[in-house]
Amino acid sequence: MAEKTSTGNFFEDFTLGQTITHATPRTLTSGDAALYTALYGSRFAVQCADSFAQKIGYACAPLDDLLVFHTVFGKTVPDISLNAAANLGYADCRFVNPVYPGDTLSTTSEVIGLKENSSGRTGVVYVRSTGRNQHGGVVLEYVRWVMVNKRDPESPAPETVVPELPETVPAELLGSAVPPLQIEGYDTTLAGAPHRWGDYTPGERIDHFDGITIEEAEHQMATRLYQNTARVHFNQHSEKDGRFGRRLVYGGHVISMARALSFNGLANAFHITAINGGRHVGPVFAGDTIFAWSEVLAREEMEGRSDIGALRLRTVATKNRSCLDFPYKAGDATFDPSVVLDLDYWVVMPR
Amino acid sequence: MAEKTSTGNFFEDFTLGQTITHATPRTLTSGDAALYTALYGSRFAVQCADSFAQKIGYACAPLDDLLVFHTVFGKTVPDISLNAAANLGYADCRFVNPVYPGDTLSTTSEVIGLKENSSGRTGVVYVRSTGRNQHGGVVLEYVRWVMVNKRDPESPAPETVVPELPETVPAELLGSAVPPLQIEGYDTTLAGAPHRWGDYTPGERIDHFDGITIEEAEHQMATRLYQNTARVHFNQHSEKDGRFGRRLVYGGHVISMARALSFNGLANAFHITAINGGRHVGPVFAGDTIFAWSEVLAREEMEGRSDIGALRLRTVATKNRSCLDFPYKAGDATFDPSVVLDLDYWVVMPR
Amino acid sequence: MAEKTSTGNFFEDFTLGQTITHATPRTLTSGDAALYTALYGSRFAVQCADSFAQKIGYACAPLDDLLVFHTVFGKTVPDISLNAAANLGYADCRFVNPVYPGDTLSTTSEVIGLKENSSGRTGVVYVRSTGRNQHGGVVLEYVRWVMVNKRDPESPAPETVVPELPETVPAELLGSAVPPLQIEGYDTTLAGAPHRWGDYTPGERIDHFDGITIEEAEHQMATRLYQNTARVHFNQHSEKDGRFGRRLVYGGHVISMARALSFNGLANAFHITAINGGRHVGPVFAGDTIFAWSEVLAREEMEGRSDIGALRLRTVATKNRSCLDFPYKAGDATFDPSVVLDLDYWVVMPR
Repeated sequence: MAEKTSTGNFFEDFTLGQTITHATPRTLTSGDAALYTALYGSRFAVQCADSFAQKIGYACAPLDDLLVFHTVFGKTVPDISLNAAANLGYADCRFVNPVYPGDTLSTTSEVIGLKENSSGRTGVVYVRSTGRNQHGGVVLEYVRWVMVNKRDPESPAPETVVPELPETVPAELLGSAVPPLQIEGYDTTLAGAPHRWGDYTPGERIDHFDGITIEEAEHQMATRLYQNTARVHFNQHSEKDGRFGRRLVYGGHVISMARALSFNGLANAFHITAINGGRHVGPVFAGDTIFAWSEVLAREEMEGRSDIGALRLRTVATKNRSCLDFPYKAGDATFDPSVVLDLDYWVVMPR
Repeated sequence: MAEKTSTGNFFEDFTLGQTITHATPRTLTSGDAALYTALYGSRFAVQCADSFAQKIGYACAPLDDLLVFHTVFGKTVPDISLNAAANLGYADCRFVNPVYPGDTLSTTSEVIGLKENSSGRTGVVYVRSTGRNQHGGVVLEYVRWVMVNKRDPESPAPETVVPELPETVPAELLGSAVPPLQIEGYDTTLAGAPHRWGDYTPGERIDHFDGITIEEAEHQMATRLYQNTARVHFNQHSEKDGRFGRRLVYGGHVISMARALSFNGLANAFHITAINGGRHVGPVFAGDTIFAWSEVLAREEMEGRSDIGALRLRTVATKNRSCLDFPYKAGDATFDPSVVLDLDYWVVMPR
Repeated sequence: MAEKTSTGNFFEDFTLGQTITHATPRTLTSGDAALYTALYGSRFAVQCADSFAQKIGYACAPLDDLLVFHTVFGKTVPDISLNAAANLGYADCRFVNPVYPGDTLSTTSEVIGLKENSSGRTGVVYVRSTGRNQHGGVVLEYVRWVMVNKRDPESPAPETVVPELPETVPAELLGSAVPPLQIEGYDTTLAGAPHRWGDYTPGERIDHFDGITIEEAEHQMATRLYQNTARVHFNQHSEKDGRFGRRLVYGGHVISMARALSFNGLANAFHITAINGGRHVGPVFAGDTIFAWSEVLAREEMEGRSDIGALRLRTVATKNRSCLDFPYKAGDATFDPSVVLDLDYWVVMPR
């Protein structure tokens, strides 16, 4: 019987160069967009209003970038991380084409690195995952690495290959999901704030002020919407005896919450064009209240584009602690115990 | 940094005659309609079925009136009521044009009254808010007044102006969001009850019988769907030390729940055409069970319309108490402690 | 006043041969599909992706069969089972035509059996319910029987008529909701598993492995989405003094959860074509974690179809107990106390 039920891949099941076509292509619709709004309350005008998006040159309001990310990511879980002990990191994540309601997304992954841990019980798998639309066009690409359990600690270790990954996505690769814009049609009043790209300065820090409490039903509905099957988010019967005694909130849910909160202070950062790296610093549970703040790390022009410019941001999310005083690291390395997310990414803004 | 983060307007920031264009136009879709059904279980046939709506003359099923109200209202919160101490009332609310899936709504407000309170710490702001569709057509107009904190109790008081507001929306202004109907196509069996406009009598009281318990995840998802950013609904971390020790349910969520419950007894009241006034008499929290009853206050013909007539209703919602015996006021003025909503509005019904 | 409020039918209100047209036709949209995904996380490719469905011959991704079932069923509740003491069973349930986003469903029921119980306080009502689309085409037909309270124990008993019902839907009636498929376009990798119809053997048992915990907000939103008004699911104020002291999860919610879980092991069982019978063996409450396993009862060819074949399955759902060892009955008749659902149905799979 066991051969019909999938219990996921173990470290030994991955080989360098292996390509995996993940199951269940998914048509995203205005229904998913509405649910996304209900889950996070995001208010970026380009994604919320067809009329606003069309006035600047989109076919209609594109779907939220993180809805696209979570959908593409969710498909990889049954093959890559069902037996993961930890999600270690993301890198080189680029949003390549816009996604509109009605588009169907599917995902493939390539194994680009393998490294057994010294314990012999786990290993790190590096995959480059690619999301494509129904026309075969790439919409999203990213690398993640995950610590995966071995089925058998005695099985031999593969040759160690650790891919070289860019610390940041270079500015020349940004913005490809944004069509050429009639930026004079961009109404900052309707968008929610007057501050354009040029108004932000590297080093500037912004408290996003509000806090939102997460409920079990919310993160479960979100994570199922993304068809992410990681068990730790759904099964209280087993988690009550697990590491935390309770269900863990999907890290991507926290990213989306922080992004929605960041509207207050970054209202014109209408598109995430790349994610340089991200760490889920601490676990989040239902009942936790998420706050966020951001720092401008860099401001870059984009080749051939006078309509938009790029800002590199660090957004930090905390739980159960206001971000008025920008909590981050205590000393050089240790995070403030309230910090749950440290995300380094590029947004675009109208110039 | 503070200049990028909005903390909302204080009483001193409002001036008479000021017009505010609120952020984030919002395209409402069949996705929002589905969520609205999931949140309240509303069963009015005109809003639930394209085929039913088309048979009587609509282009397709229009969106629920209160979904329109909450969306238009939600946009005003970041500018008008983020620093409100209390929502005091609504008046002169009229639904002017139908809203269909795919329409994009935006809101402007005009400050029509200001009155500092004797304490010097707060003042009342009166605004007339107007929701428009992507063609500039008015879909909704209403007045509300809110008690807003002053930033500085020492700042001087503005001249007191209190607008004159109609006690009820007059019958000649009703019904403009209802296209001329082929009322012979209206099937009362499919609509759920045989009682038409002429079957209701002023003074008649109707218990809507059922009760529905509200959960935190539900009211949070609803309130985010409307992009209403009032903090008291979302932030348990701060509310645990606040007035109630917990999150407060958005008053509009209770209005929508009462309206959905009112289907049992008012199945053919397929459209709210105006709200004369409303008071949130008591706070509602997750875990409370909402019941409702209605009284027919008036029955009016509508000029030039033989298809539909108007009923003026009072709908009273209670928490944790059946409405079998129509709880309302104990004596002349004090509400029964179970009462949470007292809403005076006009519906239309087929004749 | 009482005549406006419906409190549902009692046993005396039903007569043999009576036909009931249920209220509130309902247009199902991509919004409902998105919510369905968020509620259960279902991953069958045909229902998830337009491109996948079109490649094998559907007009676009059809709606999930159980979303159709719950919608058609929900309409019957206000007329049939508002005063039910127990839902006793289902039989002869057939999915006759596919349902696509934009279709509007309505339901009629015929009373095909009546039997007063010996206590004189209740009776069993048998109804055949039929769901139709906006063109009048039948999409779903099923029989259910319910124990309904009498209004007055003294009222006379009707003549006893118990309909003869098929133990299983015969193979020649299966598959009519599946258009002729270009089965060579069916990609088992994208669908999630290599096992086709011929790979399953009667007697084979499959553990679906995962467990999902149900929250109050989730089952309430689901049940309202289906416009099912059974009070026991929604009203904590009255249920706290009821049989269980708390709200009961709609049995259909558990069926949908078990079906979604069954993807792991039955990924190519892309359509439920008939339900032979089902029993809700035990009550389910918020906080319970649902697991499921299935047994293949039969494998049948379908007349005139070389594209698909039928499998008869028993799917058993448990609460708070893994299904690794296939819990079912202890001895001949008594169910294991963890079992909450015993469902006997036909699915189709590509050959």
